[in-house]
Amino acid sequence: MLIESFYADALAHISYLLIGTKNAAVIDPKRDVDDYIEEAKKQGVKITHILITHSHADFVSGHLDLAKKTGAKIYAPLKSNFQFEHSPLVESDVIEIDHIKLEVLETPGHTPDHVSYVVTDTSRGELPVAVFTGDTLFVGDVGRPDLFPDLKEELADNLYHSLFDKLLNLPDFVEIYPAHGAGTLCGKALAAKRTSTIGYERLYNRALQYKDKKEFIEKLLEGMPAAPDHFRRSSAINSKGPELVENLPTPKAMTPERFEKEIEKGAIVVDVRSYIAWAGGHIPNSYSLDHNCMPFSTFAGWILPADKNVLIVADTENDVKIATTKLRRVGIDYEIGFLEGGMQAWAKSGKPVNSFRLISPENLEKKIQIKEDIELLDVRSKGEWDTGYIEGSIHIPAPELRNNFDRVAKEKPVILVCGLGPRAAMAASILEQQGFDNLEILSGGMTAWNSYHNKESACSSSK
Amino acid sequence: MLIESFYADALAHISYLLIGTKNAAVIDPKRDVDDYIEEAKKQGVKITHILITHSHADFVSGHLDLAKKTGAKIYAPLKSNFQFEHSPLVESDVIEIDHIKLEVLETPGHTPDHVSYVVTDTSRGELPVAVFTGDTLFVGDVGRPDLFPDLKEELADNLYHSLFDKLLNLPDFVEIYPAHGAGTLCGKALAAKRTSTIGYERLYNRALQYKDKKEFIEKLLEGMPAAPDHFRRSSAINSKGPELVENLPTPKAMTPERFEKEIEKGAIVVDVRSYIAWAGGHIPNSYSLDHNCMPFSTFAGWILPADKNVLIVADTENDVKIATTKLRRVGIDYEIGFLEGGMQAWAKSGKPVNSFRLISPENLEKKIQIKEDIELLDVRSKGEWDTGYIEGSIHIPAPELRNNFDRVAKEKPVILVCGLGPRAAMAASILEQQGFDNLEILSGGMTAWNSYHNKESACSSSK
Amino acid sequence: MLIESFYADALAHISYLLIGTKNAAVIDPKRDVDDYIEEAKKQGVKITHILITHSHADFVSGHLDLAKKTGAKIYAPLKSNFQFEHSPLVESDVIEIDHIKLEVLETPGHTPDHVSYVVTDTSRGELPVAVFTGDTLFVGDVGRPDLFPDLKEELADNLYHSLFDKLLNLPDFVEIYPAHGAGTLCGKALAAKRTSTIGYERLYNRALQYKDKKEFIEKLLEGMPAAPDHFRRSSAINSKGPELVENLPTPKAMTPERFEKEIEKGAIVVDVRSYIAWAGGHIPNSYSLDHNCMPFSTFAGWILPADKNVLIVADTENDVKIATTKLRRVGIDYEIGFLEGGMQAWAKSGKPVNSFRLISPENLEKKIQIKEDIELLDVRSKGEWDTGYIEGSIHIPAPELRNNFDRVAKEKPVILVCGLGPRAAMAASILEQQGFDNLEILSGGMTAWNSYHNKESACSSSK
Amino acid sequence: MLIESFYADALAHISYLLIGTKNAAVIDPKRDVDDYIEEAKKQGVKITHILITHSHADFVSGHLDLAKKTGAKIYAPLKSNFQFEHSPLVESDVIEIDHIKLEVLETPGHTPDHVSYVVTDTSRGELPVAVFTGDTLFVGDVGRPDLFPDLKEELADNLYHSLFDKLLNLPDFVEIYPAHGAGTLCGKALAAKRTSTIGYERLYNRALQYKDKKEFIEKLLEGMPAAPDHFRRSSAINSKGPELVENLPTPKAMTPERFEKEIEKGAIVVDVRSYIAWAGGHIPNSYSLDHNCMPFSTFAGWILPADKNVLIVADTENDVKIATTKLRRVGIDYEIGFLEGGMQAWAKSGKPVNSFRLISPENLEKKIQIKEDIELLDVRSKGEWDTGYIEGSIHIPAPELRNNFDRVAKEKPVILVCGLGPRAAMAASILEQQGFDNLEILSGGMTAWNSYHNKESACSSSK
Repeated sequence: MLIESFYADALAHISYLLIGTKNAAVIDPKRDVDDYIEEAKKQGVKITHILITHSHADFVSGHLDLAKKTGAKIYAPLKSNFQFEHSPLVESDVIEIDHIKLEVLETPGHTPDHVSYVVTDTSRGELPVAVFTGDTLFVGDVGRPDLFPDLKEELADNLYHSLFDKLLNLPDFVEIYPAHGAGTLCGKALAAKRTSTIGYERLYNRALQYKDKKEFIEKLLEGMPAAPDHFRRSSAINSKGPELVENLPTPKAMTPERFEKEIEKGAIVVDVRSYIAWAGGHIPNSYSLDHNCMPFSTFAGWILPADKNVLIVADTENDVKIATTKLRRVGIDYEIGFLEGGMQAWAKSGKPVNSFRLISPENLEKKIQIKEDIELLDVRSKGEWDTGYIEGSIHIPAPELRNNFDRVAKEKPVILVCGLGPRAAMAASILEQQGFDNLEILSGGMTAWNSYHNKESACSSSK
Repeated sequence: MLIESFYADALAHISYLLIGTKNAAVIDPKRDVDDYIEEAKKQGVKITHILITHSHADFVSGHLDLAKKTGAKIYAPLKSNFQFEHSPLVESDVIEIDHIKLEVLETPGHTPDHVSYVVTDTSRGELPVAVFTGDTLFVGDVGRPDLFPDLKEELADNLYHSLFDKLLNLPDFVEIYPAHGAGTLCGKALAAKRTSTIGYERLYNRALQYKDKKEFIEKLLEGMPAAPDHFRRSSAINSKGPELVENLPTPKAMTPERFEKEIEKGAIVVDVRSYIAWAGGHIPNSYSLDHNCMPFSTFAGWILPADKNVLIVADTENDVKIATTKLRRVGIDYEIGFLEGGMQAWAKSGKPVNSFRLISPENLEKKIQIKEDIELLDVRSKGEWDTGYIEGSIHIPAPELRNNFDRVAKEKPVILVCGLGPRAAMAASILEQQGFDNLEILSGGMTAWNSYHNKESACSSSK
Repeated sequence: MLIESFYADALAHISYLLIGTKNAAVIDPKRDVDDYIEEAKKQGVKITHILITHSHADFVSGHLDLAKKTGAKIYAPLKSNFQFEHSPLVESDVIEIDHIKLEVLETPGHTPDHVSYVVTDTSRGELPVAVFTGDTLFVGDVGRPDLFPDLKEELADNLYHSLFDKLLNLPDFVEIYPAHGAGTLCGKALAAKRTSTIGYERLYNRALQYKDKKEFIEKLLEGMPAAPDHFRRSSAINSKGPELVENLPTPKAMTPERFEKEIEKGAIVVDVRSYIAWAGGHIPNSYSLDHNCMPFSTFAGWILPADKNVLIVADTENDVKIATTKLRRVGIDYEIGFLEGGMQAWAKSGKPVNSFRLISPENLEKKIQIKEDIELLDVRSKGEWDTGYIEGSIHIPAPELRNNFDRVAKEKPVILVCGLGPRAAMAASILEQQGFDNLEILSGGMTAWNSYHNKESACSSSK
Repeated sequence: MLIESFYADALAHISYLLIGTKNAAVIDPKRDVDDYIEEAKKQGVKITHILITHSHADFVSGHLDLAKKTGAKIYAPLKSNFQFEHSPLVESDVIEIDHIKLEVLETPGHTPDHVSYVVTDTSRGELPVAVFTGDTLFVGDVGRPDLFPDLKEELADNLYHSLFDKLLNLPDFVEIYPAHGAGTLCGKALAAKRTSTIGYERLYNRALQYKDKKEFIEKLLEGMPAAPDHFRRSSAINSKGPELVENLPTPKAMTPERFEKEIEKGAIVVDVRSYIAWAGGHIPNSYSLDHNCMPFSTFAGWILPADKNVLIVADTENDVKIATTKLRRVGIDYEIGFLEGGMQAWAKSGKPVNSFRLISPENLEKKIQIKEDIELLDVRSKGEWDTGYIEGSIHIPAPELRNNFDRVAKEKPVILVCGLGPRAAMAASILEQQGFDNLEILSGGMTAWNSYHNKESACSSSK
């Protein structure tokens, strides 16, 4: 028995290949499934089982793609009521893969349908060795129960019992394999362990310290961050069964002329180049989503309308491919075109180009010192804002700007601040669409600001 | 804190990158160190520490290469008496990397100098979360104490105390990260978990079931397989400090003429193509070491003389590079040449070529039925032989043929049998050097034989 | 104006991208058309024209694929009567591409419909700069007029006039771009110029020295080599319009079990590994076609039945892809499967394997000296045979063995001899299918034989 | 005999591999010589000869690198007085390579030492088939004789005789292989033929129409563009023998901190990203040299000081490698460092960043219409300027700005205009170093301007 993990870094999602002597299972597959197939080939096993822990909200799942490509059978909770062919599972059901036994543990809380899979290696012993906990129990945290706002109290109650009466009943030595890693944005936040054990979490998992149910629920629901818009959408897609990726249209190369026509017909432009290049020159009203330096899938799912054709501006065709994969991970499935020859080709064609300047920490400091009349707009998350900000800033998290742009002073120069730069450009692209033109981006964000002032950056995460 | 593992499949060796918020440590690096550097770059951290658990015998370690390339500091057991610059460690020494604390636990047994590193994530709690056990405690097994034959009783005694009085004193939930994976040969044997926990091993590790010291030692020393010849050599190299890989000569392209001259001057020929291609046609007296289908480094270290120049025959230059890396992992550092244009170029030059035929299970069966006078030579390990063999076979493990070839009947046709085919070709190449010419190789080995007879292969591992 | 050439080395076919300031034409495209599209993109031009010189017999043309992918228009001789959409051309028709003028010159002879395209760069001058001569005029030779046996006299007559009354009327300085390069087999024969000029060919082209028509025709038809079987097939496909490559099935990975079933249902096995590996071990009755070391497309078109599914044995999946492309270049369009895991996986499954030994020149020499009773079979072409052979050999060119195998003594050991080795293995695979089992292959062929005897190889070409 | 050409597109330089049956020659090698070695390997020949036509001024030659790597012998004009080991050649000297005969023709004019190599394929005929003309005779043009200003009249005189009395004495059908291609900047100018024939050039080469010597010289010296600064430098390096590339330091990854220190110590920063990304954000006073969209080597040789360490800012490490190769082609051999993590890492560190905005043709048009007080600076070459410009512009070719920046009004907003954008950014980077801060770049240059106004761009070349 061997467990290989697959980390989808634009989603902080972790899926697993559970390998027996001849067969293998994939737990909670992402939508780009070739990685599993290749690893199985390398290991000399056949993927025969696809296990789903619950109806995922934050990404579109690849179970149908994987089933189609491998012939594997799908196993999912009975309560999920999935509309595609699968074997429905209830408490205590057992799945056997070679010498591996997986037992179903119903663990509702994050969602009403959630199950965990308890793994026993019968070739070694009769007690379990590991558990796939999905979004019920993470390393250091537990799943949020508030994605169904009407049910959140009930789900929090369920979660308490799933954790304390079920998962924590497992022996201390049992390894935990959750469906998500901790922070997932550019930088150090990645340095958080992705597996743990029941005993360690029992002692040190923050949420598990509240052993009184009332207190547990209270603390859990306190200060929960906003849920991205696409969570509801992904759930519905997953429940129905997503379109197979092989049936989705492949990205089409387009000339600037064709691109312009598609924009006129209502397509949106997503510019995935670095935020610096976007600032240097971009198609007016394009979305800036620096695909190398942010949780691209999460933000794309969050801020892009999902019912429009998408036009990609990228540096290379390979970047187009990667961005397309990441868009599809959150269910952006419409036709995709890309600008052949990139932004240079667009510029050459004489079509409109917009640009903004970056401002360095040094120059921003000067403006502040001479009290220039500027609007300092911090677009980081509540959690980051709480670790400190530039005096005089106002705070609107980037995704919320779509509805709160009128809180920003249009008549003043607006200087946008985020953690590293990319989200400030994303915010600038949202404001540009609302008619703002006098925008500057703090180069390097608060990380640069703090470095310039010789402060240790509190946190470079950027959710 | 994040732990990334690196599996060197030609050695079954596992090394680790332990990642903090800004810095990182590598535990027991292999000699090709760029993998660590790239992963650290991807994670945005700097490699600052290199930790050695003990003086490795089975491979040449990359600590000096990594130190040179990253500026990281080397930490190693005081008792190792290493002759290169390092920080010597003794029981209870503590190393801190960002919020990670590593405490030294002296755990002699596999070697006299062995230490384990107990890891605490101080950002989460004060009890340890994991332990790097080196070759002391594996998943399902413990380190062998017999590599220093004179000391084996004493080391086995030490091992008992290291395990029962030290490692097993850790809490059940502590994760174990050992320096070796289970079986490492082609196929399913890879499907064995590479990490575990103290609690799980306490219950199910075979060796740990003997709680009486005398019995523990007795059982441990029972039926130990032969230690490859290079173990002694690698130890010496590691102790002195291996030559930096960047200082070793790069493989040189050679014409057949030049190749022949080097052979005359004493160089050995290592043919890393598939065993089937080697059988089809090879340079007389070359070693067959199918580099895709066997633990290449282990066998190369075992059967090749380490003090001769090496000439490689491969299908592509990329294969030459890979083979060179794997040779250097076991300290084969002499000049390396390779045959430009491969075996076809050699054949074209009119130089001598030898070949052997494969025999299929069906045809072997026929020969046996008609009682043809053949010598059936099984070259697998003792463990494999014990799972079953073809009646009438004699048994000499492939590496031992170098000294025991006179036990094989030279006058009869010899049919060589292994697990999958490659080791039979390796054995054939050893016999060819001793003047055997009437050799055939069972295609697909015992795996094929069993498939042909519709039997489940007991074990395709091939140590 | 710029001309880029594309050499398809398994066919000795040359096609061209003729580049203007914004647009480009492809002349006589091969079936794998992405190369043209990429080069056009690199040069910043759009492929707008596809020009066909005549109905090709030796390969399946990519005009429809290219038209589909680029939207370019197809131009072809009126006399070709092609059944797909195109602009039919007759003498003196003019095509303009930016500043480039192409004028049609009807040059029948190789085929009745053949035209040449005379190129004028109007930005530089009014006289022509180059001519695309298709298969009418080569560097050093002219097209063969005997592919339509009934018409050969008439076509030879036409050819005389096409050459002497038309092409040679062009100024001496005009560059010639033909549709084929000289020899195309492994080795030095490639070192023949691929372009020339009217003046140089007028002086030195062997065929053009016979200025008397009768003599010209006589010499031309003298000693013409056999035309491969697929020539007739390709002509018919090209005339009708080949299936688009994008509509052809992609190669399917198959297990040994599935492979065996397909063989039972009538599929043929094509082993594209090196001839040495094939000799070492292969699926009984597979065709050996060493894809790196022979004009693979030509021989595949020649000896493989075109109406059967094809099963490929290769070292890597990339080799499968390359071989598939080359099979499709000669119209082998049926379903293609390949053996996942290669020959090792087949061997492992316990299924039948056959093998032959190579014999080195030295050992063959010994057999000859002691007058061992062997059948020495030389399978090279007539032209190669004429440059010298091993005494005592019989001569049957490899492709003709399909019908002439009964001329080979089945009761004796047969030693197969070709130029380099691969064709001897191909011949061995044909004989194996006819029940021959006692076969050996001269390693390195006559090239090795001559090297061994210190003779300069007269010619390593292998048509 | 086969001739393969190698086009170095950052230099418009063409070199050749002349292939015999077993041996090959390289004519005028570029400094990155592995391309030749690979092609020779593919063709199965050995590079035995390196032929130099003259002392090159526009690039650093790879003859010593190639000699070192292959063992080939260097042949060069006696008059070159080269200080490295070579066989000196004079008029009528003959070099034989297999069946190929090369005869030396002294053809001074571009330089005093220039020779051409007349090629005869003795296997086909006794008259020559081709001539390597170096920088004496190009397709459509002849070499400039004014690089040695003191000698230009004398050299022009020599050139006349080299052309009319020597090269034009060759038969019309002889093919010409020159050392340079026509335009070499981004776009269509590349679409110019790279080979020709004596007869065609005799008729249509502009320079060869002046058959009267006096007129020939007059016309030739008329309107000659400026010679880049590095021409003198490269000549000297080539004469002495360039340092072997393998001895040059490899580019070093540097942190922003280290980068800043190197800048303080006097290193120059070369930013090879797209001009749009450079505009978006760059290290103050870096040089902008968009390496994908301009004749990078030529401009790098021209405007960069050659005696300073170079720090590269690029998008990827691969871009660093490519840029390094191209810098070395013009003799920029000093230590090279590059910014690890690219511009984002620099921004993150809080260090100074500068940026400029692009302006689209539409917005520039508006400024012009409302008569905004701007300085419109056209930085294209004289030849481009002559094809048309925006009214009100002043004209200073980009490289000349280094000495003529004081002709630009510092107090006004300066809008920089070139052909496509990259040279305007290069010019902006030169002005920024002179204290200009109020700069904008016309996005897409005159090409965009003309497209916007629906005019056909006269010429998108950008020398």
